[in-house]
This record gives sequence, structure tokens and C-alpha cells, in this order.
Amino acid sequence: MEKFKRNERLAVMAQVLTSAPNRIFTLSHFCEMFGAAKSTVSEDTAILAETMKKFGLGTLETVTGAAGGMRYRPMLQQGAGRRFVEEVCEMLRAPGRMLPGGYLYFSDILSDPQLVASMGRLFAADFYDSGADFVLTMETKGIPVAMMTAEALHLPLVIARHSSKVYEGSAVNINYVSGGGRIETMSLSRRAVREGSTALIVDDFMRDGGTARGMLSLLSEFNVHCCGACFVFATEKSSVSLPVPTHALMLLDEIRIDEPLQVRPADWII
Amino acid sequence: MEKFKRNERLAVMAQVLTSAPNRIFTLSHFCEMFGAAKSTVSEDTAILAETMKKFGLGTLETVTGAAGGMRYRPMLQQGAGRRFVEEVCEMLRAPGRMLPGGYLYFSDILSDPQLVASMGRLFAADFYDSGADFVLTMETKGIPVAMMTAEALHLPLVIARHSSKVYEGSAVNINYVSGGGRIETMSLSRRAVREGSTALIVDDFMRDGGTARGMLSLLSEFNVHCCGACFVFATEKSSVSLPVPTHALMLLDEIRIDEPLQVRPADWII
Repeated sequence: MEKFKRNERLAVMAQVLTSAPNRIFTLSHFCEMFGAAKSTVSEDTAILAETMKKFGLGTLETVTGAAGGMRYRPMLQQGAGRRFVEEVCEMLRAPGRMLPGGYLYFSDILSDPQLVASMGRLFAADFYDSGADFVLTMETKGIPVAMMTAEALHLPLVIARHSSKVYEGSAVNINYVSGGGRIETMSLSRRAVREGSTALIVDDFMRDGGTARGMLSLLSEFNVHCCGACFVFATEKSSVSLPVPTHALMLLDEIRIDEPLQVRPADWII
Repeated sequence: MEKFKRNERLAVMAQVLTSAPNRIFTLSHFCEMFGAAKSTVSEDTAILAETMKKFGLGTLETVTGAAGGMRYRPMLQQGAGRRFVEEVCEMLRAPGRMLPGGYLYFSDILSDPQLVASMGRLFAADFYDSGADFVLTMETKGIPVAMMTAEALHLPLVIARHSSKVYEGSAVNINYVSGGGRIETMSLSRRAVREGSTALIVDDFMRDGGTARGMLSLLSEFNVHCCGACFVFATEKSSVSLPVPTHALMLLDEIRIDEPLQVRPADWII
């Protein structure tokens, strides 16, 4: 078998680990890939971990035990998260985003792969060790950021619907009170969720927490524990109202037409 | 400034390029990052390109001109794409996926980050040089795979809606005939699309092409050219009926209850 140089091994390991964040790769996986001894790949891993740390690209950890190996967790450098969220706030303050009726146009931001990938990494960073088995979102606008959070955590994504769909099989439906005070329905396929597992909620916007509380109540129907809730935006008043650890990236004041938008990064983002 | 070893530079470059597929990074970007000369980073690039190629991890290309630099395009190895799609077919054939009414349960597959990331890379591979400016999908089920395709191509994602929403501003609505022969509405925000640009359609399922033709007709309202259409599934009969290059990953026979599911990888997947 061809021998590969350390240069090559490190580049390949960096590519493979970056492509599959938070997934555990055994040492043997790379030993076979390179036809190299465990001691060699062990040394490679140590160098790579040190390099990732030095450049603030995240952590490469060794996981011990039967299902052990190494695991890469992307992380933003100290300060980079805050700079990123400040930039998004700046984009939101751009003139012309205010719509009739006091709505803000941000669909473009919520479907930009690079922006939502960074948001997903920010959310994931605080929930790597939460024991979450899946990420839950409510259709539609939160799907991209929930997807990217799930990818960063190496977890499946489960999508609650506004109504049960024939293509999702039997489902549990609940009613909840939405932001506007209306009664709405939320539906989750029975097949999508395992009883007794743990969920992380990710959604785009929390106005007064109605939808989020709906998701919590839906999860309790499945005996699913919720370890936290992440939102791209929350109104200032809503940001502490859920019974689970809650992270919003940006806090918004009530939107007033003809006044500048009041939006700021949340305090937890460093 | 600290000097970094080639080992370290290559690992960092691999991480940075893998995190942002198809994005052009200038040589200077890495020169500044490492405090290294252009000639050094040039050599690094050549070694990295050769390594990526050797391990079938994709191509690292040099782009010349004013906006030039280097660009990494992830690719599945020869044969790996087909093996991957075969595996997904196998998952679909598992007993218990057939739902009452002749529907197939595949929501879990369409929202598994790793599966849709691979699907996105397979779609992207054929459209890197298509000149697409954005990826278009129709809510809801195609959003995750469309997101991952957009990420692989380094393009924004645009989502058409079933009806116009207050938070998307003024929109163009069209009516189209859906699979069931019903008249449905499709809506696209005016802000989301630039006149005269080029779109790549990505969606989950093409039954008889009704929704896809709706999307084409919506795009023509914006004077947008469509360079192709990608679907996770298509029925055998529909697979060649669109006026643009069309790629489906899997072809499905009409689903018959109590008969094994007929699903296979499409011929273009190698």
C-alpha cells in the first residue's frame, strides 16, 4: 500500500472531520484509510487538535470507551460570534427592509446557507453536551437554520407541521395559542419521534413564545424531554419566558413604522 | 509573527476550504492568515489539490482573473455516489414505510442532514459551471435538500410559497395545475429574485412535473432563466418531461399497496 506523508494525512483528516461535525470517527478508520499504524494516526490527531485550537477553528476531542474515537466540533473564535451577529443586525437595519404593517423582511437572511450555517454553529456550541437526540422545528421559516444546527450536532431534524399530512402517517395533533391569540394546530408524525428521547428546539422567531410552548406541549405528548430552545430572533420581552434554557441570537424591540429598527445581539454571544 | 509548519497550513486550508465549498479564496487570504509568502502558499495549494484528488475528496481549482483565487468543490468518488443512492433505496424498501393510500414515508430521509448533504453534493456536481445565481425550491419538503445544494454551490436559496405572506412583501403569484389536477397557487417575493438572473430548481419529488412547470412559469415572470432541475425522487414516467436538464436521484414506479416498492438509482449517477 502507498505510504502517505503527514502533510497529506493531516489535510485529509481535516477535510473528513470538517465535513461531518460532531461525528465520532474511530482511529482505525483513518488507519485503514492511510495504511498507517495507530501510533502514527494518534500523533496526527494530536497535531491536528493543536492546530485547530491555535487557529480557533474548533476542538478535536478524543472520546474514550467502546464507541470511542475522535470528534471535531466547529467553533467560532472568541469575538467572531459577536462580530457575525452584529453584521447580521447591520444587514437588518438596512433601509427598505420594513414592510407595510410593521413587518421586517428577513427571508433572504434565513435562507442564506452561509449565514444559517454560522447561526447553526453558534447554537450547537452550547448544546453539544446536552444529550439531545434530535432537533425539532416548526415549518417553514426555521427549517434552514434548524437543518444547519442539526448538521453541526450530527443529529436528525424533525419538522412539526401545521396540519397532519397523508405522507407522514399517523400523527399527534395539538392545539395551541399563537402570537395573535388565535388557536392553531401543530402536528407531529408518530414515526418521527422516539418516546423518552431528548429534543432541542430551533426556530426562526419567538414573539411571545406561543409556538414554542406549543412545541413543548407536543413533545410532552411523546414523553420527550426538551433540553433547550434556540431562536434567530426574539422580542425583548419574550426572551426569558420559556421553562427551558433559551438562546436567541438577536433581540428585537417592538417594530415601529418610520422609526429605526432596534435590534441587537443577545448578551450570551461572546 | 509566528511561523507555521506546512503540516499546519495544509490542515487549516483543508478545514477552511471544506467549510465553504465553491467559494473563491484569494491567495492573499491565506498568506495573511499564515504570515507566509505567496510562493509558499502556492506550493501548499498544489500539494493540497493533489492530495484531495488522490483521496477522491473533490477538486481544488485555481481561478484566474481579477476575482481569482482558489476554490474547493467537494465531489464523491467514482462509484461512491451510486453506492450512496443504492443505500437510500435500500432504506426506502424497508418494511413499514408504506402508508395507507399508497404513500411512502420518507420525511425522515429528507430531513437527515448527512443524507441531504450528500444529495446536495451530487446535485451540485453537475451544476458548478451552470451559471446559476440562486437555487429555487417550493416549500416545504424540498427545503433541506435545496439548502444543502445551495451550500455546495455557494449560492443563496430562494423559497417559493403556497400563498403570499405579509412578511415577504410584494409578490408575484401564479396558478398552476398540480399533480392531482387541482389548480394551486405559487408565490414568489419580488425582493427575492433579480430580473435576468439564472436559477437552479431543487425539490423533493416530481410526480408528473406540475409543480416544476409551475416554478418554471413563475421564473419566467421574473425573466429568470432556469439552468436545470434536480429532484430526490421522480416517477419513471415523469423523468424526462421538463424543458430543462433534469436530474432525479431515484426513480420510482407507481406505488402499489402490498407489492414491494420499485425504486432504483437514476442512470446518470456513477
